[in-house]
Amino acid sequence: MQINSEAKLLRIFIGESDRIHGKPVYETIVLKARELGLAGATVIKGIMGFGANSKIHTSKLLTVSEDLPLIIEIVDELNKIEKFVDIIHNIFEDANIGGLVTIEKAEVIKYIATKK
Amino acid sequence: MQINSEAKLLRIFIGESDRIHGKPVYETIVLKARELGLAGATVIKGIMGFGANSKIHTSKLLTVSEDLPLIIEIVDELNKIEKFVDIIHNIFEDANIGGLVTIEKAEVIKYIATKK
Amino acid sequence: MQINSEAKLLRIFIGESDRIHGKPVYETIVLKARELGLAGATVIKGIMGFGANSKIHTSKLLTVSEDLPLIIEIVDELNKIEKFVDIIHNIFEDANIGGLVTIEKAEVIKYIATKK
Repeated sequence: MQINSEAKLLRIFIGESDRIHGKPVYETIVLKARELGLAGATVIKGIMGFGANSKIHTSKLLTVSEDLPLIIEIVDELNKIEKFVDIIHNIFEDANIGGLVTIEKAEVIKYIATKK
Repeated sequence: MQINSEAKLLRIFIGESDRIHGKPVYETIVLKARELGLAGATVIKGIMGFGANSKIHTSKLLTVSEDLPLIIEIVDELNKIEKFVDIIHNIFEDANIGGLVTIEKAEVIKYIATKK
Repeated sequence: MQINSEAKLLRIFIGESDRIHGKPVYETIVLKARELGLAGATVIKGIMGFGANSKIHTSKLLTVSEDLPLIIEIVDELNKIEKFVDIIHNIFEDANIGGLVTIEKAEVIKYIATKK
């Protein structure tokens, strides 16, 4: 068990259909987070929402081109999160997408299974 | 890109089946947030939970009247969130529903697509 | 309406397939939270992620043994959350699972329906 009382919770609010180089932005972000050895990343899909463009998206509408809101949550220590925010910045610029990124303080306790 | 290091993350924990004037409370809240020009809102649906009434709701039970927990996440600057909390208060009172509202500090970075 | 400006938001990041004594860990945690009278708990299922073991899990892969990431969110006052963290600790140790636990400060407003 490791405790870090000065960690950060990074949350990225984007759309499911946002693409970069033909691939989903959320996949690109999660794979990059793993590549850089961040402690973990979780992608959550919303059922309704609006963001930078203020269009309402909802799972109730029977449209083919759904663009439901996604939240990607990433937890790690301050300096790793700060470096990752720079990468996120480049992804937003490259993909030319709108979205929100929030950074919150959090105390983090990390458990590692001894074997499984 | 706009950075606001004094922003707030508002989260509203309610039930999927909560209604106000015949409409889902979560829809009413999201539409109100957009109407007031808040930066974004995302509704997430849980698979299990309990809230103010402490009844356990779970997607495992094959009941017709599911009431899965929802979380609505809204991010914006302090004064806009404070005003929106008053609106949420009135919605909770009007609908006579139980629930939790949490307000956290967050640094927010907002990206706007230049065209799309 | 009750306001608590010194509350805590506890978030537990585990896998859907994590088991303790043959039962899902997330169920065990939610039931324990209710048993102890915590204010509420919500389980959210991710569509993609990685955690302590850094394996990527995604709902896109058609595997039988999916292990999608889960986030359990629990809100209550400081001393109740601190006691619950000890219980979570024992569950992680007993189940020998990896995962993250984050604790954030939050202002909490609690609404209770007068009748329903």
